[in-house]
Amino acid sequence: MYTIGVDFGTLSGRAVLVDASNGAEIAASVFDYPHGVIDEKLPASGATLPPEWALQDPQDYLDVFFNTIPAVLKQSGVNPDEVVGIGVDFTASSPMPVKSDGTPLSFLPELKNNPHAYVKLWKHHASQPQADKINAVARERGEWWLKRYGGKYSSEWFFSKLMQVLEEAPDVYDAIDVYIEAADWVIWQLTGVMTRNACTAGYKMLVQDGRYPSPEYFGALDPRFKNVIAEKVAGSFAPLGGKAGGLTPEMAAKLGLKPGTAVAVANVDAHVTAPAVKATAPGVMVMIMGTSTCHIMSAADLQDVDGMCGVVDGGIVDGLYGYEAGQSGVGDIFAWFVENAVPQEYYDAAKAAGMNIHAYLEQEAAKQRVGEHGLLALDWWNGNRSTLVDTELSGLLIGATLATRAPDIYRALIESTAFGTREIIEAFEARGVRVETLVAAGGLPEKNALLRQIYADVTGRDLKLGGSAQAPALGSAIHAAVAAGLYPNVAAAAEKMGKLKPETVSPIPENQQVYNALYAEYKALYDYFGRGSNDVMKRLKKIRNAALEA
Amino acid sequence: MYTIGVDFGTLSGRAVLVDASNGAEIAASVFDYPHGVIDEKLPASGATLPPEWALQDPQDYLDVFFNTIPAVLKQSGVNPDEVVGIGVDFTASSPMPVKSDGTPLSFLPELKNNPHAYVKLWKHHASQPQADKINAVARERGEWWLKRYGGKYSSEWFFSKLMQVLEEAPDVYDAIDVYIEAADWVIWQLTGVMTRNACTAGYKMLVQDGRYPSPEYFGALDPRFKNVIAEKVAGSFAPLGGKAGGLTPEMAAKLGLKPGTAVAVANVDAHVTAPAVKATAPGVMVMIMGTSTCHIMSAADLQDVDGMCGVVDGGIVDGLYGYEAGQSGVGDIFAWFVENAVPQEYYDAAKAAGMNIHAYLEQEAAKQRVGEHGLLALDWWNGNRSTLVDTELSGLLIGATLATRAPDIYRALIESTAFGTREIIEAFEARGVRVETLVAAGGLPEKNALLRQIYADVTGRDLKLGGSAQAPALGSAIHAAVAAGLYPNVAAAAEKMGKLKPETVSPIPENQQVYNALYAEYKALYDYFGRGSNDVMKRLKKIRNAALEA
Repeated sequence: MYTIGVDFGTLSGRAVLVDASNGAEIAASVFDYPHGVIDEKLPASGATLPPEWALQDPQDYLDVFFNTIPAVLKQSGVNPDEVVGIGVDFTASSPMPVKSDGTPLSFLPELKNNPHAYVKLWKHHASQPQADKINAVARERGEWWLKRYGGKYSSEWFFSKLMQVLEEAPDVYDAIDVYIEAADWVIWQLTGVMTRNACTAGYKMLVQDGRYPSPEYFGALDPRFKNVIAEKVAGSFAPLGGKAGGLTPEMAAKLGLKPGTAVAVANVDAHVTAPAVKATAPGVMVMIMGTSTCHIMSAADLQDVDGMCGVVDGGIVDGLYGYEAGQSGVGDIFAWFVENAVPQEYYDAAKAAGMNIHAYLEQEAAKQRVGEHGLLALDWWNGNRSTLVDTELSGLLIGATLATRAPDIYRALIESTAFGTREIIEAFEARGVRVETLVAAGGLPEKNALLRQIYADVTGRDLKLGGSAQAPALGSAIHAAVAAGLYPNVAAAAEKMGKLKPETVSPIPENQQVYNALYAEYKALYDYFGRGSNDVMKRLKKIRNAALEA
Repeated sequence: MYTIGVDFGTLSGRAVLVDASNGAEIAASVFDYPHGVIDEKLPASGATLPPEWALQDPQDYLDVFFNTIPAVLKQSGVNPDEVVGIGVDFTASSPMPVKSDGTPLSFLPELKNNPHAYVKLWKHHASQPQADKINAVARERGEWWLKRYGGKYSSEWFFSKLMQVLEEAPDVYDAIDVYIEAADWVIWQLTGVMTRNACTAGYKMLVQDGRYPSPEYFGALDPRFKNVIAEKVAGSFAPLGGKAGGLTPEMAAKLGLKPGTAVAVANVDAHVTAPAVKATAPGVMVMIMGTSTCHIMSAADLQDVDGMCGVVDGGIVDGLYGYEAGQSGVGDIFAWFVENAVPQEYYDAAKAAGMNIHAYLEQEAAKQRVGEHGLLALDWWNGNRSTLVDTELSGLLIGATLATRAPDIYRALIESTAFGTREIIEAFEARGVRVETLVAAGGLPEKNALLRQIYADVTGRDLKLGGSAQAPALGSAIHAAVAAGLYPNVAAAAEKMGKLKPETVSPIPENQQVYNALYAEYKALYDYFGRGSNDVMKRLKKIRNAALEA
């Protein structure tokens, strides 16, 4: 038996056809969104979008199905009758306005020229004023749920974006029957059934303990927003690992699959990675590491961890609380460094050695003993997500001398991101949420052995590496297998289908000792610059902004 | 009438023949020291020197005279009878051990293989343990003179080096009749008269109010050191601008000058720059800017300025107190930056524009408004000389984002050195020593218009640029003119012979306003990291040293 996982990313969608008995990845196909990220001009009208906007065209998502699923069937030669389930994961929060029959407003001739009729992609940041209001009113009213989000609701999330529609395009708002995460919308398109997956409902839509915030709260944001749930956010919650419905005959025909094929409840790309790396039990923190890092972990208890992104009942696997935290700049910082601060001699040496620049700098940095470069950095080039939740913070490097060289700084930057992860782990453990081992997924840890060892040494925890290069799609295929009834639950499916590399990276005691001393220094600077003792970073940004406006 | 100024630098000596009526530089000649800086192997024995050692061979200094003075006479065609004076300036403190007739110990066959028999160049740093003891004992005993040196005696200075000879080579110490600054030794060679110039005596040899520290103090350092002044440091003090003696017949014959030609009292390269840029009056601070910056200023009153390098009666011009302060890394930091943190694209663009990399980065940085880069740096890549007098401090950069580019950092580094100068100015003014205008000398300000404007804006003071590319030699020629009796004093000679570029760089009020805000941030970080609130920089160096030793 086989299942198909479809992973919807920022620029493309990827389908992977998987052997449901063992997780073997039989075939894969990627389809680039024809409209990509719409952040400059709206194709329908040619109108220029304001800064911080990022839209998508939902037709692209459908085209991912139509292109990739037939492709993996063809590639694999698998009999469609043996494909028993489909699972989907998505970027989030990427919500969209639709009519009651599921038609996106952007498909309507009378609205297609209005940017508010489109999907607002996760990285659409133009809803910051709305997020600020959501937070301010929640704090004022002492809304109990705010602490479940580390004390801050993001501009990237569902209600910030819906409220932006209300405030900036009330006509579009009026035309909305249902505002829905694209993740759930694609499932609706496959099955004809509208569901709201527990993951986005919890992390992005403020559903806690089975309910939304009160109409009074929404009414305090804007009287027109009072009944937003009843008016625009209908639909029942569906648990992760559940079956949303069966493939409709029309869709089955287009995809070349059997009508009625089980379709799993949707999921978020980061969260679905957990089963793909067998990390469904409490105490195993998954780090999805790329340009940024997302930390995902399940636990039996509900705790209010400082500065986490969110905690959601069943947010990763049904029956456990799913915790999420994050670092907003990781691979991004290393990329910035090699592009902006590494002299040619290192590129030449890398080329001569037949290595890429990252591999070369890693090799050079790996020759050092811990602490030898004398540097320390705060990894805030892109702000701090957890635990400070502050985009106005900035990067810091301390300890530079005339003898400082590029590999020294490269190593210090890697270390700073490891210290940032340790800070998150300590915030979890301070609330009694134990973090016992780490699993790293994503391209970054895959490529960089020094980084893996540093993370183990800095955190003092064993680290394992995920075993699939397309973990989210594999995770979706695991969900599909559960939806199809092949396994009783996600944990059981993950045990058979999930993948870890065999080796364990363990902390080296003498490294740990030095890193403990360095982490104490990091923490002191973290608190000094991040918690109000000296807000110089924020004032520098104000001065910068004033200069740019002048 | 003409005079000759001879400037002894770290790697070479330079003679300049000057028209004493107007300072016109008629001819110049440079002679590289054949032995350069002896910091790896002692040529006489081939023995390897320990780290931090830096020696010179005094024969090289004599060879400078023998080569350059005949050369400038020949070049200029000036009649030797019209050359009425010679002046000399030197690096300092560069002391050497000699016999009572002036013979360097390194010339003696029985001692030439002993590194302690040689000149210890200013940048010989192996006397740090002795400097530490000199400071500790002075603090313990509450020695009144310590505050005249900003609270700290340097490893680079006279007694640190002499005490190293005592501790490490007591046989060499016993063989010393006179320990003398190379500056004074070359004057002795020219005239047959041993003098100790007021400048090195004051700044390097602890002479204050006309006397050395007490035998009790020296005895507390080491019983053998109790009578060091009587035993090894004989000789009377000679005021700057005075005549040390006349050229001996032997020396006159070798140089092609008249016997009895006036030879000025020796001077230090930084201090002799003041008359060369007409900065002999109180309130005019001279910044000699190169790899590091030396700040030199005269004032009528004696004040204990925090963290200055020293205050000396007649230390720059006779009759005024000469103040010295410094920044240990300036051009060095910019050089570090372009060598270690600038990607190839900027080198390519500079080449395409026919500019060197510094000029290109300056041009790009100059396009920005003040504060636009959002960065702030502490200019401590090479430690902090004034006002913190702490070599264990290190460089810091704050405010980095993914949008930070090389010209941003380049500009922030220039600004950080300007903030460092403002910190020094404020330390002076806090004690009532007024700093009214600035004069910049050296290659760095000459080449960099943005730097000149930033220094004016940051300090809020008019800045003028010195007018000679060989200011120390010109300053020595000015001293020679006074010694020859052509002028009543150094100020009068400087007025006629000194040189300033005509233009004045004035602060731009709107820039000043932003820089005031940025300086407040700099100062807060300066105090936080530099004055004990958070000694992370020192701990990072300790961790580094432990790693390097392991």
